[in-house]
Amino acid sequence: MERTGKGKKMKKVEVGILGATGMVGQRFVSLMEDHPWFKITWLAASERSSGKKYVDACSWRLREPMPERVANLSVNECRPSGAPQLIFASLDSRVAGEAETEFASAGHVVVSNSGNHRMSPDVPLVIPEVNPDHLSLIRTQRQRRGWKGAIVTNPNCTTIFLAMSLAPLDKKFGLEKVLMTSMQAVSGAGYPGIPTLDILGNVIPYIAKEEEKVEAETKKLLAQINNGQIKEGNWAISAQCNRVLVEDGHTETVSVALKTQPTRHDLIAVWRDYRSVPQERELPSAPQHAIVVREEMDRPQPKFDLYTEGGMATVIGRVRPCPVLDFKYIALGHNTIRGAAGAAILNAELMRSEGYLD
Amino acid sequence: MERTGKGKKMKKVEVGILGATGMVGQRFVSLMEDHPWFKITWLAASERSSGKKYVDACSWRLREPMPERVANLSVNECRPSGAPQLIFASLDSRVAGEAETEFASAGHVVVSNSGNHRMSPDVPLVIPEVNPDHLSLIRTQRQRRGWKGAIVTNPNCTTIFLAMSLAPLDKKFGLEKVLMTSMQAVSGAGYPGIPTLDILGNVIPYIAKEEEKVEAETKKLLAQINNGQIKEGNWAISAQCNRVLVEDGHTETVSVALKTQPTRHDLIAVWRDYRSVPQERELPSAPQHAIVVREEMDRPQPKFDLYTEGGMATVIGRVRPCPVLDFKYIALGHNTIRGAAGAAILNAELMRSEGYLD
Amino acid sequence: MERTGKGKKMKKVEVGILGATGMVGQRFVSLMEDHPWFKITWLAASERSSGKKYVDACSWRLREPMPERVANLSVNECRPSGAPQLIFASLDSRVAGEAETEFASAGHVVVSNSGNHRMSPDVPLVIPEVNPDHLSLIRTQRQRRGWKGAIVTNPNCTTIFLAMSLAPLDKKFGLEKVLMTSMQAVSGAGYPGIPTLDILGNVIPYIAKEEEKVEAETKKLLAQINNGQIKEGNWAISAQCNRVLVEDGHTETVSVALKTQPTRHDLIAVWRDYRSVPQERELPSAPQHAIVVREEMDRPQPKFDLYTEGGMATVIGRVRPCPVLDFKYIALGHNTIRGAAGAAILNAELMRSEGYLD
Amino acid sequence: MERTGKGKKMKKVEVGILGATGMVGQRFVSLMEDHPWFKITWLAASERSSGKKYVDACSWRLREPMPERVANLSVNECRPSGAPQLIFASLDSRVAGEAETEFASAGHVVVSNSGNHRMSPDVPLVIPEVNPDHLSLIRTQRQRRGWKGAIVTNPNCTTIFLAMSLAPLDKKFGLEKVLMTSMQAVSGAGYPGIPTLDILGNVIPYIAKEEEKVEAETKKLLAQINNGQIKEGNWAISAQCNRVLVEDGHTETVSVALKTQPTRHDLIAVWRDYRSVPQERELPSAPQHAIVVREEMDRPQPKFDLYTEGGMATVIGRVRPCPVLDFKYIALGHNTIRGAAGAAILNAELMRSEGYLD
Repeated sequence: MERTGKGKKMKKVEVGILGATGMVGQRFVSLMEDHPWFKITWLAASERSSGKKYVDACSWRLREPMPERVANLSVNECRPSGAPQLIFASLDSRVAGEAETEFASAGHVVVSNSGNHRMSPDVPLVIPEVNPDHLSLIRTQRQRRGWKGAIVTNPNCTTIFLAMSLAPLDKKFGLEKVLMTSMQAVSGAGYPGIPTLDILGNVIPYIAKEEEKVEAETKKLLAQINNGQIKEGNWAISAQCNRVLVEDGHTETVSVALKTQPTRHDLIAVWRDYRSVPQERELPSAPQHAIVVREEMDRPQPKFDLYTEGGMATVIGRVRPCPVLDFKYIALGHNTIRGAAGAAILNAELMRSEGYLD
Repeated sequence: MERTGKGKKMKKVEVGILGATGMVGQRFVSLMEDHPWFKITWLAASERSSGKKYVDACSWRLREPMPERVANLSVNECRPSGAPQLIFASLDSRVAGEAETEFASAGHVVVSNSGNHRMSPDVPLVIPEVNPDHLSLIRTQRQRRGWKGAIVTNPNCTTIFLAMSLAPLDKKFGLEKVLMTSMQAVSGAGYPGIPTLDILGNVIPYIAKEEEKVEAETKKLLAQINNGQIKEGNWAISAQCNRVLVEDGHTETVSVALKTQPTRHDLIAVWRDYRSVPQERELPSAPQHAIVVREEMDRPQPKFDLYTEGGMATVIGRVRPCPVLDFKYIALGHNTIRGAAGAAILNAELMRSEGYLD
Repeated sequence: MERTGKGKKMKKVEVGILGATGMVGQRFVSLMEDHPWFKITWLAASERSSGKKYVDACSWRLREPMPERVANLSVNECRPSGAPQLIFASLDSRVAGEAETEFASAGHVVVSNSGNHRMSPDVPLVIPEVNPDHLSLIRTQRQRRGWKGAIVTNPNCTTIFLAMSLAPLDKKFGLEKVLMTSMQAVSGAGYPGIPTLDILGNVIPYIAKEEEKVEAETKKLLAQINNGQIKEGNWAISAQCNRVLVEDGHTETVSVALKTQPTRHDLIAVWRDYRSVPQERELPSAPQHAIVVREEMDRPQPKFDLYTEGGMATVIGRVRPCPVLDFKYIALGHNTIRGAAGAAILNAELMRSEGYLD
Repeated sequence: MERTGKGKKMKKVEVGILGATGMVGQRFVSLMEDHPWFKITWLAASERSSGKKYVDACSWRLREPMPERVANLSVNECRPSGAPQLIFASLDSRVAGEAETEFASAGHVVVSNSGNHRMSPDVPLVIPEVNPDHLSLIRTQRQRRGWKGAIVTNPNCTTIFLAMSLAPLDKKFGLEKVLMTSMQAVSGAGYPGIPTLDILGNVIPYIAKEEEKVEAETKKLLAQINNGQIKEGNWAISAQCNRVLVEDGHTETVSVALKTQPTRHDLIAVWRDYRSVPQERELPSAPQHAIVVREEMDRPQPKFDLYTEGGMATVIGRVRPCPVLDFKYIALGHNTIRGAAGAAILNAELMRSEGYLD
């Protein structure tokens, strides 16, 4: 029996993980080891792994050790039978779309980190600090598809830090133009992921479909919902995405043009004061400050700032005027925590706090 | 006796190197080993080195071996006495300004890679493919300062690849706005330069004064010269500069807005067809193609494209529409060859071809 | 008021740090943040830093943030006046010898990580799990030098993991021959330490004086003390030391010949069962298991095993017969925790438990 | 029409490559671009590649560009029909054994870099500078197996540098004991090979089957051939093999005990004076000096010494007494040139010079 952030006592919710042996799956396992609301009771992965114990099926790549209780769970096939209602999903995009549909239509609530359904107009794409109200699309989704279950998604990792930094600006000052260049960590490509021979002594100025995802998902995240319809804002965004030799942590350079003319101090204040639903409800995985602004001239850096707020914050620095647009700054976040598994877990916490998991 | 690109026979010009033991100094030594016009006969470095043989004074950091003839030259103090007329300079910025002035006022032609004099209105800041006519500022400089010698500079490494990519666009289509994010190699910081503990597993989103240099120098390079006056164009530029774990090679993401509306194909054609004075005169260090455009979706990359045209080309790739400005692309170049020592050598070749070294 | 491992209540001992701004000094600060016995009240560093607040004097390079209380302490000159009795020292070897002597002769107990005094016959060189009885050399030292204070040293980082792995073997089976090759982390060279240009894409098969230190110190550590005299054992040791591109963690390949003929199982059992004074007395920084043996065929690895027992254990793996000597194995440890700051702290804890700090 | 080292004019020999798209296959293509004796006319790779042009089938990973002529060759299935007599083979070990047998029994001379047949008593395992006489095992092989073709192998990359350093010592002073620890480059594992997440910030102290190969192959290489029988010498060898974050170049620490008592100077002289069949016959790929000894205290290093003699030499340094055995030293070589493709090509050149390819 545990207490929620609001103080009610409750039994832990059983959760299953689809794609439990992948890099994001491993983060799910690690982050939920001592979760006050959720308890992993079911794991599934590709055929090759099913039937094995997790410890034998999984090539564990995190520095922190595999939680013992989960190590001994059996890995199931990616089929709904026997799975708990709440499913965290991080399957390879070649199979994720169909599998998630199968689970949702069988009545499961699928909280997905995969890209397949993100841009569907009746699927919520949610960052709890950015657009918690988008969860209401679940109703549209259930009506249209006749499901008892649902699919809810979080954005691509690169999108998350950008969107978290933009949301307060858009609300307060109005966005006009956004240009972003990312320097992304190798863990973003999963495991085995990037061959050493590709990235050692190199920068790869291309990540398949990443720029399209960042541009489209950021627009959807900052959109309004009217009568179950998504209405995107009237502003433009351009992304250039690169892979660099960093293990964890995506660093992004951003330039923005705004509809009003705030000062540099106004921007920093808006970020520092930003509190949204997860902070107000004290959701278990919510960072105390969703955005942390650093004033040192050479920060944020992955080496020092990656685990700010347990890896759940977006860290911003070097806020300064942009000679072409209005302001430029650096945003940094942990791509497999806030950018993937932690994002999905926080979505599920938001859903529970709204009664979607009852 | 050698031939110039134009075919005249001539004796090799003796050259000296100020700052011969540094990273760029080493590149000067390496690049001029078999130079058809220039021959190193004099070296100078900090007090600590003076009096020693080059091989003993220099912590050689290039993969190619130190040329034997130069290894046995003595290292002099940074004083003009005994130095040849033509001096390549790459001193630390704390001493470069004064030392270069001393040499120029003593009648030497200083072809400098340092930043101290670059932005002076009577000092040419030159990329031979971009603004060869800026050499004419030498006359202004000599008149104003009463020198027989002169100081001529090349831009910062990051600026060079950006400016080379922009010059043909500005000439043909007119620049309006430029945003650039760089991912720069550690060799750009010299030796010992970046401590491993600073950059391993990290991105450093700050390089002291780099963004200011890129913005100011690019404007000066693309300016017009009227009656010995620099007149900058009416367009805006913003740079964000980062250090990544790459040995050599600066990669830059660029977005541009243009005054006219070319197609993607027009841009590529303008770059591919770009020929300027160094190509026309067949200067010894000139790349056959100053700009090389690659069509693969994931190029250019430092690992594969760094030594294009012997490291003297700017390599461009991923040319595509920008949803905010007009086009975006990647530019890459070798920061210690085209971006430093090779830039100065090509400047000296241009000067010789114009009669400034006679 | 705190309890020791033995249960007595006691007031925290005030400690000072000589060389507080260096890499090992930073580890001292970090490891003693919540120490139950020791409290940092005094910091000293080179002239350049003295007079400044620690946060301003120190280029903090650890991933964990600087403890706030210490950040605001002033940095003193390296002079005894005003310093507490117990001093942890990690000065540069060029000044460490003289400074430590000055403090010890002024009555301070100097627990040093520097190499200068390690091999003096009246200076204890101690690993608490290996040769706690060597502390008795303090008496010889005080008699001979007429000091009220003392100097006690811990070995070089590379030596520590080797000696910890050898001590149980020597006690049980008798050592005859030891060959060791190390692959050492860049943090072992301090900060700024190894330039990126030296180690990126490289192995440096040489570390100044390291092999001599490992060979001599290991012999002294495993020696007997008779009447205040050190008597080294009759066995041979050879070391080859290399620098590789790893941030933290020295990996060592070891081959040993023994005087008796144990089985592989015997070796593993002796290591696993090894308990020494720090474990028996439950010293605050003592690892529960000084030696951890892993059975996986590809372990230990710095990435996964570095923080075993909080970075205070030596992790051994791949124990197997050696076709030339008797057995070969891998040893790994955290070079700035167990290999430096943690080693000195554990020495001080041992000294306190023996009454040397009363 | 070309000249051999001996001066005869001759037509180039057509060669085929089995496993042409792999890392070693790419090196074959690159090293034979301008080969005076051999010309690539036939390529084969796995089913997935067959039917495509080489440029489309191959994920080219070398820094030097793909030779144009070969880029346009078609890739065949790994079947003998249509293949030239001389085949260089570098297939994955899961299929190499059977495929090589099929080609040899069909009359082809297979010069293989794979491990499958290396230890067969009737298969020559050859380094031309070490045991050129072992080629005579081809007769035994043909008699026993009834083949017109043959299989000839070169050793594992790690073995080659060790064996080249040991052969002159064994001949002159007699080997007794050898201990070796390797620090191996990622390119040794092929492509995609080592995932970045496995090796960044890490050392992997295990390479599957590598230690067994090094120990067994070195013994076979230094063996005598009597009446078609291999007779291994009476000396012992132990290897410990590690993977480090280096792109190319295996570094090895070696300790040796010898039957006689040479001085350090004797060892260096024997290595420097070492000339064998490839040098005497001036085989096209033979290094002028098979062994290069460096006297600097911190060499050889992959960064600076990898391309000594075009990557075909073994570079030795830090020769010094070993307190346990007699001497210790460092050996370095280019694992995909001298350690793989170059080794096979030199074997084929030796075979041609002996008339095996007529």
